[in-house]
Amino acid sequence: MVDLEQVIQSLDWHQEPQGLYSPIEYTLAGGGKRLRPRLALMAAKMYGGEDLALPVALALEIFHNFTLLHDDLMDKAPTRRGRPTVYVRWNENTAILSGDQMLIEAYKQLEALPPKQLPHILHIFNKMATEICKGQQLDMEFEQREHVSAEEYMDMIRLKTSVLLGTALEAGAYIAGASDADQHNLREAGIQLGLAFQIQDDILDTFGDVATFGKPIGGDILNNKKTLLLITALTLADEEQLTTLNTWLSAQQGTFNPQEKIDAVRSIYEATGAKKLCENRMHFCTKAALAALDKIPADTTEIRKLADKLTNREK
Amino acid sequence: MVDLEQVIQSLDWHQEPQGLYSPIEYTLAGGGKRLRPRLALMAAKMYGGEDLALPVALALEIFHNFTLLHDDLMDKAPTRRGRPTVYVRWNENTAILSGDQMLIEAYKQLEALPPKQLPHILHIFNKMATEICKGQQLDMEFEQREHVSAEEYMDMIRLKTSVLLGTALEAGAYIAGASDADQHNLREAGIQLGLAFQIQDDILDTFGDVATFGKPIGGDILNNKKTLLLITALTLADEEQLTTLNTWLSAQQGTFNPQEKIDAVRSIYEATGAKKLCENRMHFCTKAALAALDKIPADTTEIRKLADKLTNREK
Repeated sequence: MVDLEQVIQSLDWHQEPQGLYSPIEYTLAGGGKRLRPRLALMAAKMYGGEDLALPVALALEIFHNFTLLHDDLMDKAPTRRGRPTVYVRWNENTAILSGDQMLIEAYKQLEALPPKQLPHILHIFNKMATEICKGQQLDMEFEQREHVSAEEYMDMIRLKTSVLLGTALEAGAYIAGASDADQHNLREAGIQLGLAFQIQDDILDTFGDVATFGKPIGGDILNNKKTLLLITALTLADEEQLTTLNTWLSAQQGTFNPQEKIDAVRSIYEATGAKKLCENRMHFCTKAALAALDKIPADTTEIRKLADKLTNREK
Repeated sequence: MVDLEQVIQSLDWHQEPQGLYSPIEYTLAGGGKRLRPRLALMAAKMYGGEDLALPVALALEIFHNFTLLHDDLMDKAPTRRGRPTVYVRWNENTAILSGDQMLIEAYKQLEALPPKQLPHILHIFNKMATEICKGQQLDMEFEQREHVSAEEYMDMIRLKTSVLLGTALEAGAYIAGASDADQHNLREAGIQLGLAFQIQDDILDTFGDVATFGKPIGGDILNNKKTLLLITALTLADEEQLTTLNTWLSAQQGTFNPQEKIDAVRSIYEATGAKKLCENRMHFCTKAALAALDKIPADTTEIRKLADKLTNREK
């Protein structure tokens, strides 16, 4: 069995100039769930080829961490996994350039693939990378826009979050020799799982428990973030609820007690049925993921276990 | 014959979201010499395979323009080729994200290569991309450092500028079936040509003619840029020249007439022999490039013509 964490930690970043490589080592040492490479290895294992998927697993993990590095700079996020982000710890130029190098390092991992498999993997990797950039672009645009529909939001999180999980499963399966149908269904399962995971993330940010969620609750509300909860509530609210919601959305920071805003908006999410609708949508995506897995003749037990863990975080 | 400019202009960037793709189109429409893709096509043509090198030529041009886009942001350069840079015309986040997408687009071009050639090209492309990032990192570090040696400077410009020219020739030759020896010698020629070109750029920025150079003369001097001229002059200067030079280097902007500083530093570059030494070094690199070309049995006329044009810009 592949000891993924050990392999990631043993990647050698002690190269010159250190100013370029230290932030890469720092970012990858930050931990996280290693969800994407684990999915790639899991899918490959189903077809007896876990080891073969290691290059693509590492490429996906490095790529994912590259997106975090650049996204944190674009979003001006001061911390990530309890540590200062790269642009804070070093500076903006370092975050830009080390991030660029990290993207190149992801492509370097692909060099270890069998030559026969490289063209297809390069193709789906490039496609995924493009979709993730599109998702990040839409995410930034949405924050500047007045109105965003639930469908637009779902499309954005599909691009920004889900295709990476879908591609991880698809690529792992391809490398280990899965049929086209299995690759397709695994990809679909990963995408639906990613959507469910992201919607749950929105819900937990507002209704979760600080101890299990790991972040302060209510951050999205305080930042007026256009989550599925807010987008749905704005659609479902009656006139009075809409007035209250808009009053809170336009309230100047510093003129109110943050907890009061969190409680008020949370009540509206419940009263309008937005919370319920988001939960339903999340369960719908989870079911769609499981339905895609049902179509696969190979043993999907491990992925099902992980899916269950990912989409039942509140428990 | 490949109409390179036409092919570059016909790349389709009219995709959604436009906020991601417009800056890519804008950057590539900026013109420039198209030196890198031309070198790749020229090398391939020597072995009868100009068309085959088009994917790698486009990848190199897109990659080069990606580096300009991110470098301009890091260097806070307001204009490029007479137009506002992307971070000025749009904003910093757009420059970061569209630049990332441009890097991915470079890799996408490689998908069009014959599967058999892809592994080797991906390898040399990744190696080149890494070296260019290292060069940019060193360039930024040097500007913060007190002392930089001529050797360190030469190594930096080799990484930042020259390996891209060397790789263009090498990759074009490989794709068209050149021998390993020819690939090696073409790479060497490209690297030496790149060094000569960069040193000449330093010289022209100080001693050039504004009409032919296309930029105001003396910019490097006014910015205290650690060019080979300055690095060399600091080594060669006698006590009096050193005092004068250091006085100008530490003079507060706004307290002197810019033309006076340009004239004074220029005089020291001449009096110390720094100008002469840089010119010699440039001619040495040009000769080394021609010597590498001499070893190649194939017809190198076109590359020699281009080399002559590139290294005789003052005429």
